Amino acid sequence: MTRPMPSPETAAPSLDPLVALVAEDMAAVNALILDRMQSPVALIPQLASHLIAAGGKRLRPLITLAAAQLCGYRGTRHQMLAACVEFIHTATLLHDDVVDESLLRRGAASANAVFGNKSSVLVGDFLFSRAFQLMVEDGSLRVLGVLANASAVIAEGEVHQLLTTGDLATDEARYLEVIGAKTAVLFAAAAEVGAVVADRPEEEISALRYFGTQLGVAFQLIDDALDYAASQAALGKTVGDDFREGKVTLPVILAYARGTAEEKAFWHRTIEDLEQTDDDLTTAQALMEKYGTIRETVERARQVGEDAKAALARFPALPIRASLMEAIDFAVARGY
Amino acid sequence: MTRPMPSPETAAPSLDPLVALVAEDMAAVNALILDRMQSPVALIPQLASHLIAAGGKRLRPLITLAAAQLCGYRGTRHQMLAACVEFIHTATLLHDDVVDESLLRRGAASANAVFGNKSSVLVGDFLFSRAFQLMVEDGSLRVLGVLANASAVIAEGEVHQLLTTGDLATDEARYLEVIGAKTAVLFAAAAEVGAVVADRPEEEISALRYFGTQLGVAFQLIDDALDYAASQAALGKTVGDDFREGKVTLPVILAYARGTAEEKAFWHRTIEDLEQTDDDLTTAQALMEKYGTIRETVERARQVGEDAKAALARFPALPIRASLMEAIDFAVARGY
Repeated sequence: MTRPMPSPETAAPSLDPLVALVAEDMAAVNALILDRMQSPVALIPQLASHLIAAGGKRLRPLITLAAAQLCGYRGTRHQMLAACVEFIHTATLLHDDVVDESLLRRGAASANAVFGNKSSVLVGDFLFSRAFQLMVEDGSLRVLGVLANASAVIAEGEVHQLLTTGDLATDEARYLEVIGAKTAVLFAAAAEVGAVVADRPEEEISALRYFGTQLGVAFQLIDDALDYAASQAALGKTVGDDFREGKVTLPVILAYARGTAEEKAFWHRTIEDLEQTDDDLTTAQALMEKYGTIRETVERARQVGEDAKAALARFPALPIRASLMEAIDFAVARGY
Repeated sequence: MTRPMPSPETAAPSLDPLVALVAEDMAAVNALILDRMQSPVALIPQLASHLIAAGGKRLRPLITLAAAQLCGYRGTRHQMLAACVEFIHTATLLHDDVVDESLLRRGAASANAVFGNKSSVLVGDFLFSRAFQLMVEDGSLRVLGVLANASAVIAEGEVHQLLTTGDLATDEARYLEVIGAKTAVLFAAAAEVGAVVADRPEEEISALRYFGTQLGVAFQLIDDALDYAASQAALGKTVGDDFREGKVTLPVILAYARGTAEEKAFWHRTIEDLEQTDDDLTTAQALMEKYGTIRETVERARQVGEDAKAALARFPALPIRASLMEAIDFAVARGY
């Protein structure tokens, strides 16, 4: 295993040290993903590889690999389980893009835009089933339980999000429930599985689950901030997607709560009634600037990220631990 | 357990004896289904119960319960596993109706027509995940393997069907592959699980799997015949759906193969180009009548049904065995 150069204190936080520390494992995961997404029905690997090859950061399998390394695991089971986590994630992305009618994903045309909604739904189902086949092959009922629970909660979170869409009565608590379910649960499961496979005591499994949860919440908070703040190139998806879909995310919740009657009427028209003109996104961004709601969303992510770091304190001060802490900073720094 | 009246030889075959023999178990399955489809997100049980309460025959869980009884199983695990089978089936129906853009299901408005495609996709995902949670609770890796494999093959079959849609080059062999995957595999798994839970020798497990496969093929052949032959009331869905969607089913394959040049042009226009006028369904039905393709599809189902019966021969001549044989006749008789 190559020892990465430590990042100097002054440099921007990076994923590179984490990527370098699990590089060999990740190469095995990538090979497994390619091998196990095959099917006699050629459209399945075609569509799956459109998304899987589109250069995601593989953040969730990275977490599984890193958690296993942090727990001193020496086998290869974590590679297959990391592939399962990525398959489940890919399945949810395929279904999300159908649900959101998204045309872009990771800077390229989304699978539903290229292959159609029907194929995206069914290939999502295939990848999801394939993940469970691989877990059965692995043979741990505990791992199966963690990822079956995560999958059920993700679906609940997505339905819940559908219900909060266009509903300005959605408050911060409900928003946090939604992102806890739709995003954080898979980060949590990804980390937990790494500890389970290493057969660590319950307190360590639980600490890694908490780490994953908080990292996932921070990650989603930043995503929701970037949807209003980033350049399209940096985001890899269309800026203002959440706005156009009427999603009630934290930057909106805070701006609405603090708005004047006239501003509230703006949010009702644009988010609840989805009556939007070309200038409305700019107006929304100006209102967020006025009330500092993007800054506040990012600050919230930073705090949650600190919780994630604290959960790692009980583990040995290995390079992998430092790289995970830096990964948290990296996730948050995307928002600045 | 109430002993059903034996159906007289002359009466039409019925599901009633089978339903009566597993009635107590099925009551427990229904209670489990209602209990385990609950979620803090109220839309999930609402949407799920729209479909689950719509009065399907619960054919697949019936098969699991009957197979377990045939194998002399005395516990209650088969009830939960039958519920899992029904959850997986319901999930595939929800996704199918989205993929097919169906407006009717079991004689009522389909879930996607009432609740929208987005919710149908996500609630399908939820039910699918919930099924795996329940299997983990049950604790049998073998059962998990059987149903994870079945789910993957179903998704493959659905994608394969998508590719054959509108493609008149689809031959009988390819059609049989599609229905083997999209329909028969879950019937096979439903029967297999009943034998697995009863801890029977591999030959019996294998015989029940074969029984389920052949029953599933027969069932789908009849469904595909009825799509052109039934009255809408009897079918519980819109007659001619397959035609309007350009699905290449056996009645079409045979009529196309035997058609004149002019008739072949008709099929190309209606099935491949999906250019259809109001009279075309009637013309399609007349061509099927001319070449006897519905009759032949039903006859094929009858033969496959005989294979299914033969697979039951090795089991003791219990009332449950007779009721399963009658269920096969019932499935086939729908086509006459």
